[in-house]
Amino acid sequence: MGPTWRTFRSLTTTLFSPTPLAAQQPLRPLIRKMATTSHPPVLKQPVKLACVQLASGADKAANLANARAKVLEAARSGAKIIVLPECFNSPYGCDYFPSYAEQLHPLPPPAERSPSFAALSAMARDTGTYLIGGSIPEVAAAAADEAGAEGKKTYYNTSLVFGPDGTLLATHRKVHLFDIDIPGRIQFRESDVLSPGSKITIVDLPGYGRLGLSICYDVRFPELSAVAARRGCFALVCPGAFNLTTGPLHWRLLGQARALDNQVYVALCSPARDMGATYHAYGHSLIVDPMARVVVEAEEGETIVSAVLDGAVIEETRRGIPLRDQRRFDVYPDVSQGEGLKFEEEGQV
Amino acid sequence: MGPTWRTFRSLTTTLFSPTPLAAQQPLRPLIRKMATTSHPPVLKQPVKLACVQLASGADKAANLANARAKVLEAARSGAKIIVLPECFNSPYGCDYFPSYAEQLHPLPPPAERSPSFAALSAMARDTGTYLIGGSIPEVAAAAADEAGAEGKKTYYNTSLVFGPDGTLLATHRKVHLFDIDIPGRIQFRESDVLSPGSKITIVDLPGYGRLGLSICYDVRFPELSAVAARRGCFALVCPGAFNLTTGPLHWRLLGQARALDNQVYVALCSPARDMGATYHAYGHSLIVDPMARVVVEAEEGETIVSAVLDGAVIEETRRGIPLRDQRRFDVYPDVSQGEGLKFEEEGQV
Repeated sequence: MGPTWRTFRSLTTTLFSPTPLAAQQPLRPLIRKMATTSHPPVLKQPVKLACVQLASGADKAANLANARAKVLEAARSGAKIIVLPECFNSPYGCDYFPSYAEQLHPLPPPAERSPSFAALSAMARDTGTYLIGGSIPEVAAAAADEAGAEGKKTYYNTSLVFGPDGTLLATHRKVHLFDIDIPGRIQFRESDVLSPGSKITIVDLPGYGRLGLSICYDVRFPELSAVAARRGCFALVCPGAFNLTTGPLHWRLLGQARALDNQVYVALCSPARDMGATYHAYGHSLIVDPMARVVVEAEEGETIVSAVLDGAVIEETRRGIPLRDQRRFDVYPDVSQGEGLKFEEEGQV
Repeated sequence: MGPTWRTFRSLTTTLFSPTPLAAQQPLRPLIRKMATTSHPPVLKQPVKLACVQLASGADKAANLANARAKVLEAARSGAKIIVLPECFNSPYGCDYFPSYAEQLHPLPPPAERSPSFAALSAMARDTGTYLIGGSIPEVAAAAADEAGAEGKKTYYNTSLVFGPDGTLLATHRKVHLFDIDIPGRIQFRESDVLSPGSKITIVDLPGYGRLGLSICYDVRFPELSAVAARRGCFALVCPGAFNLTTGPLHWRLLGQARALDNQVYVALCSPARDMGATYHAYGHSLIVDPMARVVVEAEEGETIVSAVLDGAVIEETRRGIPLRDQRRFDVYPDVSQGEGLKFEEEGQV
């Protein structure tokens, strides 16, 4: 066994002292920080997390019923945090977003305004679990004008998170819209229809700790993950529908990259693949541990994959490779700090 | 073929305009930026880059001679940028750093003060190539005191970059020292002996473009790569000696992660594995393309791996998945901008 972390840090401090004072100058703040930083556990108790790789079709009521069945199944297996995929209540595609969209605001919406909200809330309450409701198309309507003409509609790709009592804990609107154009392979422009969210989402799950939440293409932008992890999240959860071009190239790699750099668990939850749909989701929902090992990965069909997340593994990883104390914020800025961060939507309709 | 990039951007701007002005407010600066940003090529012409996975031993002169032979071989094969591994002139280990260290400053050192500097300069000049001289142990000596007593010595893990005429273009002192402790697997503390550098290193290679340079453990800290890539580098080069624990877990993954997030080439150059040495390098030098595909990867023995880097691949990647215009610096800060960045060593001896 090596020395304990406390010993290691005090050794590090001691070992630096032979350096001449002049040379030490720029390092002093860093060293002091290393010697005094304490690290409370980010995950308070082990928890089973399940990703439901749902097969969704054109019938929203059927999708909600199927989601409910699978969430109940995941809960029966012991999962306390359950994740649904992106657009779990509808087909994925710009042609579908408006017709499937539900108006969430003002919150909470009555069931007739948002059947998906009601269904998710009931699933969470009935299972006593934390439910990350993948995402659904959301519509926000501006107020009617003075002449009574209907206000403009704005669409979002929105995730809803519920607690074990069925109350809404957080919402996340996809911040980075999926606009890509790989000639001859895939072209997609969510921004044809959707508007982007404008905040980083961190959700507190009492009894466990914090989750960082993003949606699909968001995961390509490492800032969301870095901010969430450095602000104490034990896991990054990302419902996402990658495709058959970028899925094989980047899906697992992105999950592992975010876990590796942030030493947290990462859960990516995809819809099941449906080659009869207009958009072919990659599938391969997966959970990565803080050492960037893929703990479990689905194939493409409808299934549930789950893993027990353990705070001891996070701590062991961070003691072994102590990135958290080795970052050189005297050489580059800390993206998780400062005034440029938004954690609340401005002017939310 | 999809629309050209210029068309795509003007489309994006147009598509946002139906959104009500109030909702647009927070997005306006972003959209304006997207519509006006132009992207000059970051790599001016294709270039063959070679990583020399060198087998080094205890004899420095022999190491330098072997490095020279391999650099000449790489140059004969057409490589114009050649990378040597970390500590290519010596065994890797805290017990070795002081005895192999050479005093570089004041620059340039005469050959008797730094035979490795002289050898590298000659290799670059004689081959007419850009040479990233892996790294060598460096010693910096403070001035003698008034009584004539020798000044304190400070050691660094330092990379030297030479141009085709043999002149020194840049130095990089490893910023993040390799201090890890995975019980029963690997324990290492460079900070027992070494001091860290304190700057981000970007090197201009006239005729080609810019390289981001870091050393080994530096690659775990994504800021160095993000800053380099966002400031126009076409490749990130990292001489590094990972080990048999973290190598299989993280070496390739780190190379791919940095390429993926930054859409640049990444070259990681390891020493060959020597199971008779006290430190067992992983080997597996590799070159990753901007889509995060591993173009070439060595096994563990002494070898040269090379690939042609092509600016068109960088542009194609960035047109297809236009991360560069999609980052949301209205939601999180841009780590590559602002006052917190250091590009020069302060108080360099």
